[in-house]
Amino acid sequence: MDHQGRLSRARLTLEQSDLDALLVTHLPNIHYLCGFTGSAGVLIVSHSKATVFFSDGRYTQQASEEVRGAAIKIQPGKSALAAACDWLARQKSWRRVGIEADHLTVTDRDTYAKALRGKAKLVAAPPIVERQRMIKDAGEIAKIRAACHLGAALFDRLLEVARPGVSESEVAAELEFAARRLGADQMSFPSIIAGGARSALPHGRASQATLPLRGFIVCDFGVILSGYCSDMTRTLHLGRPSKKDRQAYQAVQEAQQAALDAVKPGVKVGEVDRAARMLLQKKGLAKFFTHSTGHGVGLEIHEAPRVAAGQREALQPGMVITVEPGVYLPGKFGIRIEDTVVVTDSSCEILTQCSKDLVII
Amino acid sequence: MDHQGRLSRARLTLEQSDLDALLVTHLPNIHYLCGFTGSAGVLIVSHSKATVFFSDGRYTQQASEEVRGAAIKIQPGKSALAAACDWLARQKSWRRVGIEADHLTVTDRDTYAKALRGKAKLVAAPPIVERQRMIKDAGEIAKIRAACHLGAALFDRLLEVARPGVSESEVAAELEFAARRLGADQMSFPSIIAGGARSALPHGRASQATLPLRGFIVCDFGVILSGYCSDMTRTLHLGRPSKKDRQAYQAVQEAQQAALDAVKPGVKVGEVDRAARMLLQKKGLAKFFTHSTGHGVGLEIHEAPRVAAGQREALQPGMVITVEPGVYLPGKFGIRIEDTVVVTDSSCEILTQCSKDLVII
Repeated sequence: MDHQGRLSRARLTLEQSDLDALLVTHLPNIHYLCGFTGSAGVLIVSHSKATVFFSDGRYTQQASEEVRGAAIKIQPGKSALAAACDWLARQKSWRRVGIEADHLTVTDRDTYAKALRGKAKLVAAPPIVERQRMIKDAGEIAKIRAACHLGAALFDRLLEVARPGVSESEVAAELEFAARRLGADQMSFPSIIAGGARSALPHGRASQATLPLRGFIVCDFGVILSGYCSDMTRTLHLGRPSKKDRQAYQAVQEAQQAALDAVKPGVKVGEVDRAARMLLQKKGLAKFFTHSTGHGVGLEIHEAPRVAAGQREALQPGMVITVEPGVYLPGKFGIRIEDTVVVTDSSCEILTQCSKDLVII
Repeated sequence: MDHQGRLSRARLTLEQSDLDALLVTHLPNIHYLCGFTGSAGVLIVSHSKATVFFSDGRYTQQASEEVRGAAIKIQPGKSALAAACDWLARQKSWRRVGIEADHLTVTDRDTYAKALRGKAKLVAAPPIVERQRMIKDAGEIAKIRAACHLGAALFDRLLEVARPGVSESEVAAELEFAARRLGADQMSFPSIIAGGARSALPHGRASQATLPLRGFIVCDFGVILSGYCSDMTRTLHLGRPSKKDRQAYQAVQEAQQAALDAVKPGVKVGEVDRAARMLLQKKGLAKFFTHSTGHGVGLEIHEAPRVAAGQREALQPGMVITVEPGVYLPGKFGIRIEDTVVVTDSSCEILTQCSKDLVII
């Protein structure tokens, strides 16, 4: 990964934002800029000084193995925050230091402000690293493609294990075991396996509930492979679906296709959301579509851009987003179909390749 | 769970802190106070008004099933934050509203402040809910006990699968599969399986590296069961250990026992850390003990109190903490032994019951 290039681009944006330095505290941003994958660190990027990475004693060896493009400073017995504060206090010429206000806690901000003793002002930086991360480079797309390929392969296991009487948790166990054996680092979020009336919970994590004789099962799962996430949802049906069930499924499938068809460079993400919502409106189901159409995927399972009503970010080649409309009838059933896709020069490529026709078990 | 009682106690502390209300935004605190387990919510606790819980459209059904002791407000198309802001803007008589400054982001704080338009001041609240959560009630201890029992049972599986040539990731896969099949909701953190020189990484997540013919393997894992976490570490040895390896292992085992012996009501947590550190100092290994001795465990895998040098919190019956000294010789090996324990009236009870003698495979 081109950490030097990423840091150079971040430095350039700093200058344009009239910031002397950026205090990078959001771990996925640190991972992106310098390669560190641990759970405690601070990265300070500036144009006047070399980039410096701070961590604590647990990460001495890991930091030296992973960090590229930054000097490593670890002080025995001190946290990354304390070490970064000590160092910041010595930077006398800085006036404006950017913080990641969407991630930094109020307490940590106050600690940094105290270390600066009024010499420099902490200001909310624009989402400099998040915007860089939004457009994936070829190396990242290759990693996300591999993660999605692995994630999609779990669908076959799903078809083998989802049966009436089996608990949602057992289905999740089998999926997660298969994922690990195929080389996944971990799941990208707690797997959602929600059967029968529980399928109407858009975020129904796999529970001890058993799958019913008849009804939909929403299965939403993803893996992390080489640090990058996959995300995909398929909805199966146990037993014979009613005509209404089939119609609802078809409506969601058409809505998802409409949204996929809308994905191309230059189109605003809000239009992708609108494409799905309009289709469901025609079928009288729009009021049951209670979440947004998607989100960016990369080092984080949810990252920029938000694919939601009214959002004006324009799609660009290299963006990776999910397209996942769904309908949820409380107490009855839910249906969601989701793919992870990469925006190409002319449209998009689906990375989570596997059938979306209604599977009846 | 006694949500009404927990909310009453929180309200009482609010009064003592001269706060009109507390904006609870940290999800585990929301879970503790009202039972909601989803990923988006805000709870506003006050003494003048009924408690109100805000979420978004994805959680309509789940909130109505889970939330106790609070009115539920969900506005179509609005986030929990936006809904809470709308409601806050209408509370005219409040002067001081507490925030959870250790968890709330700078951006969200600014959003709430804007909604209040200067009528009320946002102030960093003391850790009201964290301090309540530090002392577990009987129902919580029962749940943590069950989680630790399940976690400890995974040790047997570990002994079956840890062999030279098997990847760390495969070992983790088998552990996690066994955990799920035994009913765990999920793991409480990414499993650490670190063999050979990788065992010197205190946070060496299971990787594709294969276990060596000879050397230590640090295995740190836990489960979540009914929302509560377990945490435990054992270190195995593949092949015949050298005399020095055995001595190092024994030193860590003695340090852990010394720390366990120090755990009793009234003792400051810093003294527990000191007990482990002093023992390792006698053996000339203290400089390789690069982290603190432990942390609280409950709804979160890391919560109050921090069991670290100089920390002055006094142990009380019902606190659940880990005791986990370790030594790490960079490039060579690492050893850590960890239990989750509950403080009793006179000492402590180990919840992660399984052998700590050196297992040689």
